Amino acid sequence: MSQAPNPAQQAPVSLAELQLQFALDQLNTAYAAALDDKRFDDWPDFFLEQAHYKVQARENFDRGLPLALIALESRGMMKDRVYGVTQTIYHGPYYTRHVISPSRLMGQAGGRIQAQTSYAVFRCRPAGVSEVYSVGRYIDEIVQTPAGLKFASRLCVYDSEMILNSLIYPI
Amino acid sequence: MSQAPNPAQQAPVSLAELQLQFALDQLNTAYAAALDDKRFDDWPDFFLEQAHYKVQARENFDRGLPLALIALESRGMMKDRVYGVTQTIYHGPYYTRHVISPSRLMGQAGGRIQAQTSYAVFRCRPAGVSEVYSVGRYIDEIVQTPAGLKFASRLCVYDSEMILNSLIYPI
Amino acid sequence: MSQAPNPAQQAPVSLAELQLQFALDQLNTAYAAALDDKRFDDWPDFFLEQAHYKVQARENFDRGLPLALIALESRGMMKDRVYGVTQTIYHGPYYTRHVISPSRLMGQAGGRIQAQTSYAVFRCRPAGVSEVYSVGRYIDEIVQTPAGLKFASRLCVYDSEMILNSLIYPI
Repeated sequence: MSQAPNPAQQAPVSLAELQLQFALDQLNTAYAAALDDKRFDDWPDFFLEQAHYKVQARENFDRGLPLALIALESRGMMKDRVYGVTQTIYHGPYYTRHVISPSRLMGQAGGRIQAQTSYAVFRCRPAGVSEVYSVGRYIDEIVQTPAGLKFASRLCVYDSEMILNSLIYPI
Repeated sequence: MSQAPNPAQQAPVSLAELQLQFALDQLNTAYAAALDDKRFDDWPDFFLEQAHYKVQARENFDRGLPLALIALESRGMMKDRVYGVTQTIYHGPYYTRHVISPSRLMGQAGGRIQAQTSYAVFRCRPAGVSEVYSVGRYIDEIVQTPAGLKFASRLCVYDSEMILNSLIYPI
Repeated sequence: MSQAPNPAQQAPVSLAELQLQFALDQLNTAYAAALDDKRFDDWPDFFLEQAHYKVQARENFDRGLPLALIALESRGMMKDRVYGVTQTIYHGPYYTRHVISPSRLMGQAGGRIQAQTSYAVFRCRPAGVSEVYSVGRYIDEIVQTPAGLKFASRLCVYDSEMILNSLIYPI
């Protein structure tokens, strides 16, 4: 359970922090758009070459247990996952739609930006209505690179124990 | 399917871009509040006199097909729609609630600002619970006018083929 | 029903207003995170000592009727509520997840900042899927203190007449 400093107690932010907040929100909305547009090949490019991507139930995260639904440790594993999702896994098609809160800037240390962002992902199946698919939060470590902000680690902690059918596409 | 430049690769933004991002988010939240508050007479004022407003299924949008649920081509047609919605259409009453992501600034060219924003619209009927009504994204062209930002074009691409009952109020 | 000035008609904002918008969004996301993380003891600290917190149905709010689901008038009453929620009320456990729009800055007068923010709260019960729990808007009066922004008043106006089971945790 995160015990972050209360941002309400921060002094007025600098222009640099406003720019960072802008970049974080644009990173998050671009990431969501890539997935929602099914541009899955773009997805690994949001990460560093050696980056972690994990999707874990809140129950396990809160207890410090290691079990996760997805745990990838490099861009190569992400590309492999994309290949699996788009070429080999047989599944009913669906669209996703991410709606996210403004990003929460938690701190910066050692060249790493810590941020957390709440998300809701909706699912739409052919001829169906929109359903709540997964809600939770991103817990991110982000670094500035010559090519812009990249995820060193994106941990998706989902609140519900039950996932509708199965999780095919990244969150 | 949009092939936008990856915003993670942008240089630190200028103060002017931060101001634009602020204005976009305020435009979107004010637009949503007008609809959710049922101040429908305010709705056409968010557009230019000669503006397009379209609500289209993602299936048709992705295939470049023209069929749309609503397609209006001027502020006058919007006022007519408002008259229809508030004075003549017989329908079960409901409230809407828009929850939107931060706006995604896609570019500027020829005096037009391109932006996209993901939305979820919830519906509440009398004595009922809140339901997911429509999710999708706004694809906008926006211009700066003496009276502030106005939509030259707002295209609402909704993900689900199925709409609960029918769409009465604008999205 | 609020008749706020149309933000699209504002001039380009100052750096001070951008800083305020940043602080409002960070206040809202920190508030939501405290509740979603079940750090309920942190909740009263988002308010002034003499502050109002009210959860009211839109039907009553729109008609100016006083009845509210929760109406607290000081930080002391909030602490009492937290004690009740965590120590004495017998209820089925659930998680919440707030997803909120960017905050809508409505004005400043007499040292008070007026803002409104749309929210969706999702609920996850053990072994269950995520459900839409409550949608609505925050109507806030906020003051700058040496310890940062604090709520002088937070009014949660929820759209649906029907609440799933009962409302235990604050919104």
